[in-house]
Amino acid sequence: MTSLRLHAPVVLPCDAACTVVRDAVVDVSADGRIVFCGPASAAPALPAGATERHFTGILLPGLVNTHAHSPMTVLRGLGGDLPLLRWLREAIWPAEARMSPADVRAGMVLGCVEMLRNGVTTSAEMYFHGEQLVEAVLAAGSRVVFGSAIMELPGVSWRTLTDQVGAWIDADGLRFGPGERVELSYGPHSAYLLPTDALTAVAGEAAERGALVQIHVAEAADEDLAQRAEFGSVPRLLAKTGILDGRVLAAHSVQLSDEDIALFAANGVGVAHCPGSNAKLASGIAPLRALLDAGVPVGLGTDGPASNDDLDLFEEARLAALLARLSTMDSGAMTAAGALLLATRGGAEALGRADIGALEAGRWADLVHVDVDDPAFGTGLDAPDEQVIANLVWGAGSRRVRDVWVAGEQVVADGEPTMVDRSQAQAAVQAVAARLR
Amino acid sequence: MTSLRLHAPVVLPCDAACTVVRDAVVDVSADGRIVFCGPASAAPALPAGATERHFTGILLPGLVNTHAHSPMTVLRGLGGDLPLLRWLREAIWPAEARMSPADVRAGMVLGCVEMLRNGVTTSAEMYFHGEQLVEAVLAAGSRVVFGSAIMELPGVSWRTLTDQVGAWIDADGLRFGPGERVELSYGPHSAYLLPTDALTAVAGEAAERGALVQIHVAEAADEDLAQRAEFGSVPRLLAKTGILDGRVLAAHSVQLSDEDIALFAANGVGVAHCPGSNAKLASGIAPLRALLDAGVPVGLGTDGPASNDDLDLFEEARLAALLARLSTMDSGAMTAAGALLLATRGGAEALGRADIGALEAGRWADLVHVDVDDPAFGTGLDAPDEQVIANLVWGAGSRRVRDVWVAGEQVVADGEPTMVDRSQAQAAVQAVAARLR
Repeated sequence: MTSLRLHAPVVLPCDAACTVVRDAVVDVSADGRIVFCGPASAAPALPAGATERHFTGILLPGLVNTHAHSPMTVLRGLGGDLPLLRWLREAIWPAEARMSPADVRAGMVLGCVEMLRNGVTTSAEMYFHGEQLVEAVLAAGSRVVFGSAIMELPGVSWRTLTDQVGAWIDADGLRFGPGERVELSYGPHSAYLLPTDALTAVAGEAAERGALVQIHVAEAADEDLAQRAEFGSVPRLLAKTGILDGRVLAAHSVQLSDEDIALFAANGVGVAHCPGSNAKLASGIAPLRALLDAGVPVGLGTDGPASNDDLDLFEEARLAALLARLSTMDSGAMTAAGALLLATRGGAEALGRADIGALEAGRWADLVHVDVDDPAFGTGLDAPDEQVIANLVWGAGSRRVRDVWVAGEQVVADGEPTMVDRSQAQAAVQAVAARLR
Repeated sequence: MTSLRLHAPVVLPCDAACTVVRDAVVDVSADGRIVFCGPASAAPALPAGATERHFTGILLPGLVNTHAHSPMTVLRGLGGDLPLLRWLREAIWPAEARMSPADVRAGMVLGCVEMLRNGVTTSAEMYFHGEQLVEAVLAAGSRVVFGSAIMELPGVSWRTLTDQVGAWIDADGLRFGPGERVELSYGPHSAYLLPTDALTAVAGEAAERGALVQIHVAEAADEDLAQRAEFGSVPRLLAKTGILDGRVLAAHSVQLSDEDIALFAANGVGVAHCPGSNAKLASGIAPLRALLDAGVPVGLGTDGPASNDDLDLFEEARLAALLARLSTMDSGAMTAAGALLLATRGGAEALGRADIGALEAGRWADLVHVDVDDPAFGTGLDAPDEQVIANLVWGAGSRRVRDVWVAGEQVVADGEPTMVDRSQAQAAVQAVAARLR
């Protein structure tokens, strides 16, 4: 039963056609699900005791960040002009080796604050010290698909790390927390940092639990030369190990052949497209248009804030559209509406989630209110649908996000987080960053 | 003599090395010039009666937008998924044909408001109804290099338009207004929209007056096929007509050969690099690294807000760096510091202006204060120089611009324009946009 109604002149449910609904409402139940989304004229009667709130801007689903390492807010700006492998080996890994569980928590709180203020309500995270990371997400009121990083570390084997994920899922379930804010998953880092038998083992453990596998795939041309020499391509290696048989999210996926794309499509592999990170580290441009044309579910990812250097998915949406147009030399290759769908509905699909990423009855009420009192919307909300979407995606972006709800709970009000203190979150990260350098 | 001192923990004067000066001051004279910029410890004694203001963020020069058609705020988002020539012919030109002088004024006021709030204090504009455009700039307190558009229009010949520019310069001078806020220049649209004798005539008139010529050059592959067939390339055509002999700003300059680049370098041609517009319209990527390596002065341009779709030069700086890295597959091809210099000092150089674009004694006090109370600066201003610049360019961008001065006069205070009313500016544009569609 509806306990909260949000009413606005424009609602973008992010259905497959990216419909613009005028004078519309979103009804939310007490347990945080969407009950109704549509024109105000077609809305059911509001139950007694329910609250109605009126906004003058745009309501849309919370954005879904399909690939991030958000605790890296503590390393933001580090080694920013190095290529991928040198950046990892010389700047990032030495600093990460010194990060404590509390550092990860502090970094993740600030990451959540930044994402929520940018309209991102869900992030798929691959990182370590998962307990503290999840604690931070719950503290900030955000939503996470956490992939516990699996690789060989000094003193810890991939087997131990894999078993830890299994034990956690077996204890707490695949999804838990208020409004099912947490989903657990496996995060084998990549084919080039793990032996093939590790990938086979992870695939088996994940399949057994119906869990998602998050993995870096074919990010840079020079990172997996040995694997490509042996198997032809990373996707073929992943197919061979059984990773592609289950739920899988392939992050980056830059260096793909047509055959690799067909393999992804045939296996329902989701892709986390990270145009900003791939450009900044000079890794290349993922074949977005070809992936979509083949029917591969694609979402957008910011990657970590140390390589991008922010957690702004609207910026990734713009970059995805610009780079798709440039790499095909076709200005129709990706519209503003198409880019918005990648950041919302597409992200949910890539994660195999039908409960977020769109404003539809039954899904979680993860919502964003964008204020239109800005030159970006200078031509007015009366403008044609295409122009309103263009103003949002190309012009305003994250800058005008004012209010955010996760599972019906307001977690950003008038631009500031409601559940944690932003100044404290910034101060905590500053202290960690000072110690790590 | 100093009448205003601005004091901040970090000042970026945008000298050629992009030095980060800690605990520094910028001293400004009553007539709006910079008197001193450097460490507080080395500053001259403050004269009696002078004001000192303390900030907790970063001071840097106002950004220089080297290519814009800002009155197009009234057309923002129109036909956004068309390629360049169809977009011009089917969406833009028909709408522009119906724009009145008052429409241009309204559009330009909002354009100035948007730019100033994004830290852009100077824009090079190519448009029509110049009197109203300049009025708008003076009303908002911005700075402009206005290139009156010259092309063949129904009922108006290029000759008449050219003569009008000459008459205006002869009457008011090349630069005028408070703090010399206005510079007049010639804006022959392009080689493909004007006969070669028109370009020769404009070159002569401009040279006679020491005026800048702003012209679109080699933007898209298919726009100037006839000219390229006859002259080999647009730069060669421009050389032949004498345009390259004087002060010239070549906007876009995407389709350039090595020989064209050498021709630009030999003639001191400035380039307005517009990465966002060129990507959105699928025109291509200008050879930024090659231009800089050849010694060509390069600035950044937003292009009009109907093709980009905002007037955010920080976003162009990020795009310039990302696309330079991608097109060379070298993550060192453009650093954050290099991108910041393009947006400031480089823009001034491309316009042939030594009086803006950097915080140096003698230049106009065009300044920006960026607030660092943001997750983007979460690692703190104590971070190494490289990281502070990275946080500003990659992370915060225009979002945290709080205060802006032009010629020492504060034109944005705490994020809002001081000389015009933003709500009124938005409402005026909304009315124009509604009439034009």
